[in-house]
Amino acid sequence: MSERRGERGVTMRAVAARAGVSPMTVSNVINGAGRAAPATVAAVRAAIDELGYVPNVSARLLARARATTVGLIYSGARTPFLDAILTGSLRATNAHGLQLLLREEQRLTHEAAEAAARALVRGGADALLLIPPFAELLSEAGVVDALGVPAAAIATGATLPGTATVRIDNRAAMRALTQRLIERGHRRIALVSGPPNHSDSADRIHGYRDALADAGIVADARLLFEGRFDHESGVAAGSALLSPADRPSAIMCSNDDMAAGVIGEAHRRGLRLPRDLAVTGFDDTTMASLISPALTTVRQPIQLMAYRAAEMLIRAGRRGELAEAEDELVDYELIERESTAG
Amino acid sequence: MSERRGERGVTMRAVAARAGVSPMTVSNVINGAGRAAPATVAAVRAAIDELGYVPNVSARLLARARATTVGLIYSGARTPFLDAILTGSLRATNAHGLQLLLREEQRLTHEAAEAAARALVRGGADALLLIPPFAELLSEAGVVDALGVPAAAIATGATLPGTATVRIDNRAAMRALTQRLIERGHRRIALVSGPPNHSDSADRIHGYRDALADAGIVADARLLFEGRFDHESGVAAGSALLSPADRPSAIMCSNDDMAAGVIGEAHRRGLRLPRDLAVTGFDDTTMASLISPALTTVRQPIQLMAYRAAEMLIRAGRRGELAEAEDELVDYELIERESTAG
Repeated sequence: MSERRGERGVTMRAVAARAGVSPMTVSNVINGAGRAAPATVAAVRAAIDELGYVPNVSARLLARARATTVGLIYSGARTPFLDAILTGSLRATNAHGLQLLLREEQRLTHEAAEAAARALVRGGADALLLIPPFAELLSEAGVVDALGVPAAAIATGATLPGTATVRIDNRAAMRALTQRLIERGHRRIALVSGPPNHSDSADRIHGYRDALADAGIVADARLLFEGRFDHESGVAAGSALLSPADRPSAIMCSNDDMAAGVIGEAHRRGLRLPRDLAVTGFDDTTMASLISPALTTVRQPIQLMAYRAAEMLIRAGRRGELAEAEDELVDYELIERESTAG
Repeated sequence: MSERRGERGVTMRAVAARAGVSPMTVSNVINGAGRAAPATVAAVRAAIDELGYVPNVSARLLARARATTVGLIYSGARTPFLDAILTGSLRATNAHGLQLLLREEQRLTHEAAEAAARALVRGGADALLLIPPFAELLSEAGVVDALGVPAAAIATGATLPGTATVRIDNRAAMRALTQRLIERGHRRIALVSGPPNHSDSADRIHGYRDALADAGIVADARLLFEGRFDHESGVAAGSALLSPADRPSAIMCSNDDMAAGVIGEAHRRGLRLPRDLAVTGFDDTTMASLISPALTTVRQPIQLMAYRAAEMLIRAGRRGELAEAEDELVDYELIERESTAG
């Protein structure tokens, strides 16, 4: 057991050392076994957070929870962010001994979201792990309670009525990233936002504006471009923002895919990056470190969010209640790479 | 039911239209229900293949197969290819009503592979879905039979003793891609290969050499660089191959991550792509269309492979036998994008 490694190669032993307890105590806290003091539980949880430890699947947990199935609705094309959501949710449900059941739904309407959720419950889902924009759609429609199973959402921008949430502080993250660019001397900073039906998108615009206001920079409406979180809208944003003579020296994007689109368009125009243009993304998907220049971005700990959400769903299931009261903020991380090094 | 969509937005109705049968017949063939004539079954299977249809989860299938759990061993860092394997396997097992159980193992030895496989079986896995290099390691160790559960491998380079396989013809794919570059006038074509413990890697080298020989081009050993399928070895390959005065006009890579590394290194040297250098990848991961220049590559239908492998495992489980006799080749696809357009 002492050699069990989490998803990033962090061992249970390392968590125990950080928390100043035995590996057995760590195991007990994770599995909800034994009787650890509240201070010990808190220390172990803090060490798990700091090290990003996610336990490998446990046969015992699995046997205990085999009957429990978590449903997840997703839409759209294969993207690095969707892959991160699905693999993070798979690893997190595995770690808790839960089955993950997917349903694809292309229509982003209240009716379609509700029908997809009902189909998952009919198909055996005992709980729902929600992601934007379906988390928002179901909450707005006020149908989560009527589904009769607990629901927890990850990576949203705000709390949602009827739904537990695990998220980062998108506003603070975007504010901090914008401040870094200002510290590097940028004044004309553009923002490619996400679509308005994602609650995280609005929060990131606020964070960008906060940082500009802090620095006494007047926001220029011509430097705000509404994208759709896809590569194509990043290309379109690059084309629109890089054409004028007074083009920005930095373009921030509300996700990594759009940032890749901006970089592609800048390359086509013969710009040398990062010398001629700084670009930032959001999410830190697998692609962010592989493109050139490597992308400065904000890391969302998707797998940890899914892990926490699964814990909420298990607790809610044990109590026979919905999980709506809970809201947990997890830490984001600024990742500075070559794309802002100019 | 007629509106059920597969993973690429292909509906059951579209499959029915292509096969010239009713949607109910398609449903029956997929679920193994009813009594369709062999020719009808073949027509439906062909339409499913052509359209790339993968059914959404079916509540009935799920209820029938709930107890069946498929184990998968993986190693290494988060990469777009690993994400494709995990999400493809998740969707495929979902479509068959199976649970997917992961186990991470960093050590690439026969002993570690066997220990990981045994741990999965102890943890509840009734079958194993294997990927390189664990498929090769377990087969070489001759321990698959001793595990007592059926095993099927996807994305290997060859058949493997004791293991069913679903794969593409890596040699033919690499030969065809190399021929495209030769048709575009390239003569000095370098290859960044994968590591020798992946069976697909050797096959791709053979395909590259086949095409050079066909065109009467003498292979230059200085143009072959052994990488490790990771981004860093792509950067190293770019550095080694682009330094000499007689540098190649094209660099082919045995996966997309290494191609991204070569592109990054070329950018750092001030080369304009694709004008100064053509680059190709392999796999068509989500990243391939997002980097600039967008990457010419070979698409491996990972999800379809996983779907087929899951079918083999279910059949083997019903018969109470191992699945070793089967080997299925699925179609690859050449995807030409900007990176070879110069």
